Amino acid sequence: MRIDIITVLPELLRSPFEASILKRAIEKDLVEVHFHNIRDYTDKSYNQVDDYQFGGGAGMVLMIEPIDKCISKLKEERDYDDIIYMTPDGETLNQKIANGISLQKNLIILCGHYKGVDQRVRDLFITREISVGDYVLSGGELGAAILCDAIIRLIPGVLNNETSALTDTFQDNLLAPPVYTRPAEYKGMKVPEVLLSGNFPKIEEWRENEAQKRTEKLRPDLLE
Amino acid sequence: MRIDIITVLPELLRSPFEASILKRAIEKDLVEVHFHNIRDYTDKSYNQVDDYQFGGGAGMVLMIEPIDKCISKLKEERDYDDIIYMTPDGETLNQKIANGISLQKNLIILCGHYKGVDQRVRDLFITREISVGDYVLSGGELGAAILCDAIIRLIPGVLNNETSALTDTFQDNLLAPPVYTRPAEYKGMKVPEVLLSGNFPKIEEWRENEAQKRTEKLRPDLLE
Repeated sequence: MRIDIITVLPELLRSPFEASILKRAIEKDLVEVHFHNIRDYTDKSYNQVDDYQFGGGAGMVLMIEPIDKCISKLKEERDYDDIIYMTPDGETLNQKIANGISLQKNLIILCGHYKGVDQRVRDLFITREISVGDYVLSGGELGAAILCDAIIRLIPGVLNNETSALTDTFQDNLLAPPVYTRPAEYKGMKVPEVLLSGNFPKIEEWRENEAQKRTEKLRPDLLE
Repeated sequence: MRIDIITVLPELLRSPFEASILKRAIEKDLVEVHFHNIRDYTDKSYNQVDDYQFGGGAGMVLMIEPIDKCISKLKEERDYDDIIYMTPDGETLNQKIANGISLQKNLIILCGHYKGVDQRVRDLFITREISVGDYVLSGGELGAAILCDAIIRLIPGVLNNETSALTDTFQDNLLAPPVYTRPAEYKGMKVPEVLLSGNFPKIEEWRENEAQKRTEKLRPDLLE
């Protein structure tokens, strides 16, 4: 998989891709991630890429021309499955959407910043608009990092143990059961006995039960 | 506001706090963000902080002892309004929750990683569990960055223009209307004429109308 991220703040995105699972996935050549700074595509003085919005009001808007140049250059080089714009009014990301996107080959992710991008960018280039949740962020960069993390960890070979992703919360519409590790007793608090029993069918039953109970209590909507 | 973030991967979190709005908020002393590496609180060899889960199964679990030491030390130093654990089975973050948390004074955010933290950490210390959305990430770090961005930008003085945050998507349960900037015509695509009219009551009416239309089309659930 190849991901091209278009942003005015590539430096904001650096560290999440230089640590842990994303770093390993890139080092293992399971995914390529390229950052493109919109400022490299403007002819304006001071590398201007945004301007006041027509009609007045607070907040700057990213201009169409440099984004057009960047996306058009990438599209000349290869075909893209999707050109995604991160925006709070997009389709809300969930595990099913992440599963689907993780199967794609080439992806562009455009990050808005300030008040967003000129609407004509969305009308002309964007094939899919995605939101990571019902809250407003300073820009699309952290949303793009979230989307990348959610999809890259699903690519076979990225996690050390593939079964780990399959037993995650949401993959079966249930929240995960509680987990415990050593010590078995800490300041008087004990691990549930069944987990120490070595009786694996019973442990499995306990986990299913706990997952069901937790989901009913915290997220009954997932069971509908 | 003071935020203490507890994580095994402080390096993953660095760049989002060193750019743009979060950087400015920190430089202006409107918020203090401190990172605490769980590995600094373990006595075990190789700085071990995680272990296999009781009962078997893929994925490592963060141990209670180093987290206990870190949280207990912080709690001795000051009172905290909330000790938040980032987890996909937590309360789903939305703008209203972000507004509420942005008014707090001292906050601890604990990031899980791998399969999460020992359940006893959650039972003993955590006062609030928050999820950024219905998808699984490699760890709580990006969720913590999202939460920090969502709340810090609401602190008065952080955004250059305070009215900017108030006209954001979700603040009035409506998606934002389309935005446009120069040029007024690009490759034959024109900005809606009303935005160039200088007639501000009419522009306001158009924006409200578009916000309503967009919300009805994309997120009718917000209008219920």
